[in-house]
Amino acid sequence: MTLAAAASLPLYRRLAGDYAQAMGLGTLQAGERMPSVRELMRRHQVSLSTALQMLRHLEEQGHLEARPRVGYFVRDARALDGVALTREPDLSQPVQPGAQAHFVGINEHISLLLERGRQAQVHLDVGGCTPPPELFDHRFLNKTVARLLREHPQLLTQGRSLLANQGNHPLFQQAMARHALAAGIRVAPGDVLATTGNSEAVSLALAAVAAPGDMVAVESPTYYGLLQVVESLQLQTLEIPCSPRTGLSLEALELAFQTQPRLKAVVVVPELQMPLGTRMPDAHKARLVALCARYGAALIEDDSYGLFVEGTQPVKPLKAWDSVAGQVIYCQAFNKSLAPGLRQGWMNAGRWHGRVQMLKFAQSRNTQTLGQLVVAELLGSPTHQRSLERLKAQLKQQREAMARLVARHFPIGTRMSLPGGGLCLWLELPEGFSSARLFGDALDQGIRIAPGSMFSNSGRYEHCLRLACTHPVDAAVEQALQLLGAMACQQLGQAPRG
Amino acid sequence: MTLAAAASLPLYRRLAGDYAQAMGLGTLQAGERMPSVRELMRRHQVSLSTALQMLRHLEEQGHLEARPRVGYFVRDARALDGVALTREPDLSQPVQPGAQAHFVGINEHISLLLERGRQAQVHLDVGGCTPPPELFDHRFLNKTVARLLREHPQLLTQGRSLLANQGNHPLFQQAMARHALAAGIRVAPGDVLATTGNSEAVSLALAAVAAPGDMVAVESPTYYGLLQVVESLQLQTLEIPCSPRTGLSLEALELAFQTQPRLKAVVVVPELQMPLGTRMPDAHKARLVALCARYGAALIEDDSYGLFVEGTQPVKPLKAWDSVAGQVIYCQAFNKSLAPGLRQGWMNAGRWHGRVQMLKFAQSRNTQTLGQLVVAELLGSPTHQRSLERLKAQLKQQREAMARLVARHFPIGTRMSLPGGGLCLWLELPEGFSSARLFGDALDQGIRIAPGSMFSNSGRYEHCLRLACTHPVDAAVEQALQLLGAMACQQLGQAPRG
Repeated sequence: MTLAAAASLPLYRRLAGDYAQAMGLGTLQAGERMPSVRELMRRHQVSLSTALQMLRHLEEQGHLEARPRVGYFVRDARALDGVALTREPDLSQPVQPGAQAHFVGINEHISLLLERGRQAQVHLDVGGCTPPPELFDHRFLNKTVARLLREHPQLLTQGRSLLANQGNHPLFQQAMARHALAAGIRVAPGDVLATTGNSEAVSLALAAVAAPGDMVAVESPTYYGLLQVVESLQLQTLEIPCSPRTGLSLEALELAFQTQPRLKAVVVVPELQMPLGTRMPDAHKARLVALCARYGAALIEDDSYGLFVEGTQPVKPLKAWDSVAGQVIYCQAFNKSLAPGLRQGWMNAGRWHGRVQMLKFAQSRNTQTLGQLVVAELLGSPTHQRSLERLKAQLKQQREAMARLVARHFPIGTRMSLPGGGLCLWLELPEGFSSARLFGDALDQGIRIAPGSMFSNSGRYEHCLRLACTHPVDAAVEQALQLLGAMACQQLGQAPRG
Repeated sequence: MTLAAAASLPLYRRLAGDYAQAMGLGTLQAGERMPSVRELMRRHQVSLSTALQMLRHLEEQGHLEARPRVGYFVRDARALDGVALTREPDLSQPVQPGAQAHFVGINEHISLLLERGRQAQVHLDVGGCTPPPELFDHRFLNKTVARLLREHPQLLTQGRSLLANQGNHPLFQQAMARHALAAGIRVAPGDVLATTGNSEAVSLALAAVAAPGDMVAVESPTYYGLLQVVESLQLQTLEIPCSPRTGLSLEALELAFQTQPRLKAVVVVPELQMPLGTRMPDAHKARLVALCARYGAALIEDDSYGLFVEGTQPVKPLKAWDSVAGQVIYCQAFNKSLAPGLRQGWMNAGRWHGRVQMLKFAQSRNTQTLGQLVVAELLGSPTHQRSLERLKAQLKQQREAMARLVARHFPIGTRMSLPGGGLCLWLELPEGFSSARLFGDALDQGIRIAPGSMFSNSGRYEHCLRLACTHPVDAAVEQALQLLGAMACQQLGQAPRG
C-alpha cells in the first residue's frame, strides 16, 4: 500500500494497520489481551465508534479473537499471515432462482464426485466432515447399550405398537424435551419426533411444507445434502447470500419473499453454518423468525452444529423466538456429536407436526428404538458432557492447526473462515483457481477434498473448497496440506510457499 | 338348497356335497386323508377332471387342505361351519383410477383411525400385525449384539465413510446376496441397499420410477401403508382386483396398461399377500414379470411375507423371473420375522439402482450399521432358522384357532381367507355390515381391529376387516372374538352365535 493510499484510509483502518504491524513484529504477542475500548479511546483520543470499528476490523482480518464479556485477544497472526477472512457476499446482484440448467442435476453431480472418491485409493479424506471413531468414547457407548439391553430385554423384539406414540419412545421424547428446554425451547414431549439423522428430518419438513415446483430459500453456500434433498423433492432452490459474520442476508430474503410467491420455506443452520461456520447473532435470529412468520413461510432450522459451539455462552436456537406461530421446524441430529453409527436425530415440526408425523409414518414408519434410548440415556449424563467437551477441544486444536497449514502453504490471496467451533474450514482462493481441478489432482495423490461446486447450484464457488478438520493433524496431514497448497499455487502460477 | 337345485349342479359339485356332508357327520374325521385322485375316479366312475374339480372345490370351501406331493386332508370342517372362503373379485367392472375424492385423504383417514386407537384404552389389539416380543428369541438377539460390539468395538462411533458402499455394510451386502441366491435370485453384493424396514424401500422405489401425477397399480385390497406412501408421493393408485387364489388379475392389469399411459409401476406382494394371504402361483408370477417388462413398467415386489410361507416347498420371488431387464425392484424387511425393533430391510432396485441409491442418500443417508450386522449374522444361522420355524408353527396354530373362533361366533354368511401362512385373516361379512361401526364399538370395549376401509381408496371393503393372528389365543382372545362376533351379528339383525 502506498503512503498516499494509506493516508486516504479512514482513521480506524489506519489505527488497525498500526496494531497489525505491532502484531507482525511481535510487539503484541499471540494470546495477549488488547487494551479495552475505554483505554483505546483515551490512548488514541478517538471516539467510541472508531475504537469499536478498529477492533471489529482487526477481528474480521483474523488478527483478533473476541471472547464475549472478556475482551479481544491477539490471534497467532504470523501463522495466518497472508490469509484474510472470507469476503462478504456481493448483495448488488439480484437473487434469482437457479436457472433450469443449474438447479437440476446436483444429485447427479454429487453422486459422480462421491463415486470418483470411492473408486480412488484415498488415504486421507479431508472432504467428509464426520469425526473419526477415535474421537468418541466407544467403551462408554457400548456399555450403555449392554445395560439398556439388560434393563429392556425385549428392546429389539418389540415392534412399534400402533398405540404408543407412533414409534417415538416416551423416554426419548422426554429427554429431548428436557434437552430443548435447556436451550430455551419449550417442546411438549408428545411433539418430539425421532428421525434417522438430520437428512430425514429436513426431508420430511420440506415435503410437509412445499409441493413440487415450489421454492426453498437456502443459505449460499450451503451443505450439499440439502441441495440433494431439495432436488429429490422436485423443489427449486433460491440461494440467499450469506455473510460470514451474520449469516443469511435478511434484506435479500425479504426481497425474495416480495418477488417469489412460490417461496414456501427457508432452511437455515443458524449456529456454525455449514460450510461457512457462521454464528448468526441473536438479534438477526429474532428478525429472521419474525420475517418468516410475516410471510407465512416455514423456517426449517438445522441445529446439529449448535452442539459444537465453543465457549461457555449459551446457544439460543431460532426456535426459541418462535413462541406463538409454530413457524419454526426444529431439527437436530447427534451423529457427529454423540455416535455417528447410531444416526439418531429428532425434530419438532411446529404447526406442521401432524403432517410431518403422517409423512414419516408413510415413508419409513418408526425409527429404531435402541438409538432413541441410547441418546435419551447419554445426552444429559456428565460422562457424555465431558466427552463432548473433549471432542470440541480436540476439534478446536485441529481446526487451528489446519488453519495454520493453509496460511503457510496455500496461495497468496487465499481467504478463510475462522469459525467459533465446528468441523471444517471454508477456503476461498483467488479467481482463476479451480477446485474441481484440485479435486482430481488431489485424488490422484490419495487425498479427497470437497470442491466448492458441491455447495451451490449456482456455480459461484468453483474457486472455493471445504476442508474437514476432523483428523488429528499429524505428519501425514501436514504433508497433504503442503501438497494441496503447492498444487493450488501451481494452478495460479505462484511459486509454492511454506 | 332344494333337491331340484341340487340336481341341476354339475357332477363334481354334487360329489363334493356328499363328501362335505360326510365330514359334517363325522364319517370323515378332521386330519384324515382323502382318497387319491385315482381311487376317487375308480370309486365314483368319474373322469380325472371331475375328481380334480371336486377336490379343488372342497379345498376352496375350506373343507380340505392340500399338502403338496402328499394329498388332500380333511380340515376341522365342523369348526369352520358356515364360513366360506373369500369370494373371487368381480372382474366385470372396468378398472378405473380412484376419483379425486377417493384417492386423496387415505393418510388423513388412516391417521384418524390410528389416533382413535391410541386414545382408547386398548387391552387387545387384533388390528396391528406385528408378532409380540414373546414370540421372538430376545436372549439370542441380545447376545449377538453384545458379541458384535466386542468384535467391532467402534460400530456405533464409526460414521458412514463416503468411501465405503454409501453406508451399506459389505458383510450385510454379502449376506443378502447369499440369502437371495437361496431363493433363486442372483444379486451382486454391491447392488444390495440397506433400508429402514420395507416402507422406506417401497417409498424409494416409487419415488425413483414415478413422478407426481403418475399412476401406480396396487392389489385390491392392499396394505394401507402402501396407499399412504403412494399418496405421500402425490401419485395416483389404480386398484387391480385380486383373486384370493391367484392374486392380482393379469387381465385387469393388461387392460390398465393399454388404457392408462401414466401407469408407471405395479406394487405386488406375491407371497402371502397382505391382507388376503394369497400365494401367487409360479406360472402367474412369470406372466406378471413378462407383462411389466412388455409395458416398460417397474414391478415393485414386497417379499417380506415370503419368509412366513408354511411347508417345505421353496418360495420363488418374482425377481427370480427377472433375468434380463432388471424390471423388478425387490424389497424385503426382517421386522416381523427376525427383530421388530431393528427395522432392518434391504432392496435391489434392478435397473433403477443408481437412482434409488441417489434418493436414499439424499433423503436419509445411510442406514444404521448395527441392524445390518445383526441381520447379516443371524439370517443364515441354524438358531435363527429354528426360531423362525417355531414362530411359523405358533402363528399357524394361532391363525387356525382364530379361524375357528370366527366360524363359531361371526355372522352366517361370513367369508374368510385361509392363507398358507402369515399373520392375519381377512374377513368378508354380508352386505349391510359396517366394519367402521364395529371398529368404534370394539374400541369402546378395549379391542382394536383393522376395518376394511383401511385397505383401499375405493370404499369397496367397508363390509370387510383384517384380523391379526399374532397373539396366542387365550381366554381373553376367545372372549374378544365372541364379543366381536356378537356385535357383528347384532348389526346384521342375526342372533348371536356360538
